[in-house]
Amino acid sequence: MNVAIIAAAGRGERMGGNRPKQFLLLAGTPIIFHTLRPFEQCASIQEIIVVLPAEESAGFLSEAHRIGLANLVRVVPGGETRAESVSRALLTISPTTAEIVAVHDGVRPFVKPDEITRAVEAAKVSGGALLVAPMTDTVKEVSGAEVVRTLDRKSLRRALTPQCFRYDILRRAYEGADLHDPALTDDSFLVEQIGINVTAIEGSARNIKITTPEDLVAAEALLQEKGL
Amino acid sequence: MNVAIIAAAGRGERMGGNRPKQFLLLAGTPIIFHTLRPFEQCASIQEIIVVLPAEESAGFLSEAHRIGLANLVRVVPGGETRAESVSRALLTISPTTAEIVAVHDGVRPFVKPDEITRAVEAAKVSGGALLVAPMTDTVKEVSGAEVVRTLDRKSLRRALTPQCFRYDILRRAYEGADLHDPALTDDSFLVEQIGINVTAIEGSARNIKITTPEDLVAAEALLQEKGL
Repeated sequence: MNVAIIAAAGRGERMGGNRPKQFLLLAGTPIIFHTLRPFEQCASIQEIIVVLPAEESAGFLSEAHRIGLANLVRVVPGGETRAESVSRALLTISPTTAEIVAVHDGVRPFVKPDEITRAVEAAKVSGGALLVAPMTDTVKEVSGAEVVRTLDRKSLRRALTPQCFRYDILRRAYEGADLHDPALTDDSFLVEQIGINVTAIEGSARNIKITTPEDLVAAEALLQEKGL
Repeated sequence: MNVAIIAAAGRGERMGGNRPKQFLLLAGTPIIFHTLRPFEQCASIQEIIVVLPAEESAGFLSEAHRIGLANLVRVVPGGETRAESVSRALLTISPTTAEIVAVHDGVRPFVKPDEITRAVEAAKVSGGALLVAPMTDTVKEVSGAEVVRTLDRKSLRRALTPQCFRYDILRRAYEGADLHDPALTDDSFLVEQIGINVTAIEGSARNIKITTPEDLVAAEALLQEKGL
């Protein structure tokens, strides 16, 4: 069985306003439900754990049911950090049935079912795989205010999600993690640290992370292009 | 005298449509004129060279005059690549009067006059300086489809423009450049290659480069926020 963990327990201070960003409306529907849809539609995923702020957990399932997106879903209250939230979700997964765990950002609504499948299948082979996109900007390494060098953009990729891992590997990676570290937002990094060769799967640059009001405007535009 | 070179000779195939992207309308005005404004307003800049596709050069100055943005402007027809375009503009600058040359992308309309000034002043000290923004994505180094390592995001910056250099340094950097290389889009790289310690000046992430239809939508949103 392959399980998705949707990390949606953040409180989204960067976005301003009262609601966490994953509940802001995109084309009239909270972002988190847009994010659920490709996982519900993906034949490679048999269960979806949505990690939410504790105060948002109560009404979520009935709302998801109402719009037909709760078939595979259960809810786990999150922690103070992303790492703590993912770790709590991991602990609720049965070790005897889980094969691949796909961890995904709750504010990346534009991933496609076939992208999820490609990452899940690659993780079965190598133990871990994540979606990536090309680096569009020139990247400088700096030391203080001085440019040390220009990196070779061709060998760089931006990490997207989902990031998929064999269940036992991800558990092992999280055992060594400092769950209180708010900077720990990259599951693949933890897995790389225990010596697993993670596979980079070329995904779409449309799989954006909505973290600012400008991102939300761009997301509305992407949605219109998609014809939804 | 400090001279700005606005690189706007691209034909913008990525954007689709018939017009080069620097002429697409942003709030009713071609992007290139939005880009000109902060340079016209910046007390550190005494001359602006706009490098345009040859077929767009004729009507540009009269249109710029009409909206009050041609005080400091002259036009140079561009080449086949960005490097060739910048090189042609450089050759039209008088060596006896030029101090700093600020090279800027024609499709970055949101740079602010004080950011230009900070980059110009830093270039006077070190010989070269460019605006940068933090790296928001996690960056992976890959070899083929395998993740080699996760880079330390804290020491990485995204290169923005303007990139400012002492005139003699930029001339020297361009003497060794392959002007036919379409991948040569980063003036700072050329200057780093001849051993100059380029300074990274923290600029605003709002200084985006408009290269896709989604960028144009995001730009409209940024403009509204700005209250223009």
